[in-house]
Amino acid sequence: MSKDTKTVIIVAGGRGKRMGNRIPKQFLRLCDTPVLLLTMLRFYDYDNNIKIILTLPKDEITTWETIKSQLHNVPSHTIVEGGDERFFSVKNSLAYVEKGGIVAVHDGVRPFVSTETISRCFDRAQQCGAAIPVIAMTESIRYFEDEDKSVSVNRAKYKIVQTPQVFNSDILIHAYAQPYSQDFTDDASVVEKFGYPISPVEGNIENIKLTTPLDMEIAKIIGKRNLSLPLSP
Amino acid sequence: MSKDTKTVIIVAGGRGKRMGNRIPKQFLRLCDTPVLLLTMLRFYDYDNNIKIILTLPKDEITTWETIKSQLHNVPSHTIVEGGDERFFSVKNSLAYVEKGGIVAVHDGVRPFVSTETISRCFDRAQQCGAAIPVIAMTESIRYFEDEDKSVSVNRAKYKIVQTPQVFNSDILIHAYAQPYSQDFTDDASVVEKFGYPISPVEGNIENIKLTTPLDMEIAKIIGKRNLSLPLSP
Repeated sequence: MSKDTKTVIIVAGGRGKRMGNRIPKQFLRLCDTPVLLLTMLRFYDYDNNIKIILTLPKDEITTWETIKSQLHNVPSHTIVEGGDERFFSVKNSLAYVEKGGIVAVHDGVRPFVSTETISRCFDRAQQCGAAIPVIAMTESIRYFEDEDKSVSVNRAKYKIVQTPQVFNSDILIHAYAQPYSQDFTDDASVVEKFGYPISPVEGNIENIKLTTPLDMEIAKIIGKRNLSLPLSP
Repeated sequence: MSKDTKTVIIVAGGRGKRMGNRIPKQFLRLCDTPVLLLTMLRFYDYDNNIKIILTLPKDEITTWETIKSQLHNVPSHTIVEGGDERFFSVKNSLAYVEKGGIVAVHDGVRPFVSTETISRCFDRAQQCGAAIPVIAMTESIRYFEDEDKSVSVNRAKYKIVQTPQVFNSDILIHAYAQPYSQDFTDDASVVEKFGYPISPVEGNIENIKLTTPLDMEIAKIIGKRNLSLPLSP
């Protein structure tokens, strides 16, 4: 595999809640397009030779197959069954990633990542081995030693981490050979525990993770804007 | 002054940009009502005997007087000229706060604070002397030792801080007698430096600070919802 070969693992972990009959966020529609397809198209727009691996909870694979069969512009992709934790979903997917290339891991519910953010992450990972997009923290935060004891911290020292988190695939494969730890909050933390430094690049503010119903309404605004205006670079 | 006397200092620091002719966020309209009035009404709804102190940049006082003169439901309030930093705006306002009561400091551009959040903060401040509303952090974050060196941190140990930050007025007045420091990120940090512990209570997720144009669009959604649905308690 050439050093330039690019892969993205798209992690779509949302499960439908049987009791509430709720649709997982990755299948909801924005501008009449499923969130997951919008996300895949961002990477396809960045590089239409990129290899796309999609990891879904076992129960949701059929749902995606059904949705997909009614769409005409889905980039070709490999579906991998997810695990109980995000860690295991990525680990399962890495079995389909060849060594020697560059691999990104991206949240399926972040459809507003800009092509520029993707490009910055891949370029930096090619230079440094491990790159993540970050944006400034705009909220005041406090550190809680325990439930009652907290202290002000300087928010300028913190940044919000987004995805795609992009790595030399050899590094990511080796890092994911470690045993699972609850301290693994994202892929960067897995690679970091493995002893490899992470290089930050600028993300884009619209690259939000769609989690709550309010997020979906915000997404509609960003989606509408996005038809007429480019995302922030 | 009775221990039950309540005051709120509403800090509206936004300045119009002369070149861009932009209106400061506190004067923009949501549901046809200036943000600043919506914010004032939250506190008035909580307690219609509350004393309201409004601090505005010198240049914006006339603008507010003009806007106010065209409105019919503005609660009575005292206007205080702000300083160059938020610290000095609060300090100037404290000259109008009598000792022995409870005083809140709130951002003028947080119109979606719920009555329940206000109530929790005042109740806790009455018990403990210093209370602030916090909500869970939903984003992954990293700590930056310097521009290049960063480490993953456990986001469960951090919370996002909102306003109103509410204090026994004697404590706040004493704390604001300290010399200004750039480390003062909010009122809690001033009180904390003075050596007084801060007690956290639950905030409400809609209580966002309106800073960017996207925030204003999100605010329209929350504003519309809010006509039919209560804010989260």
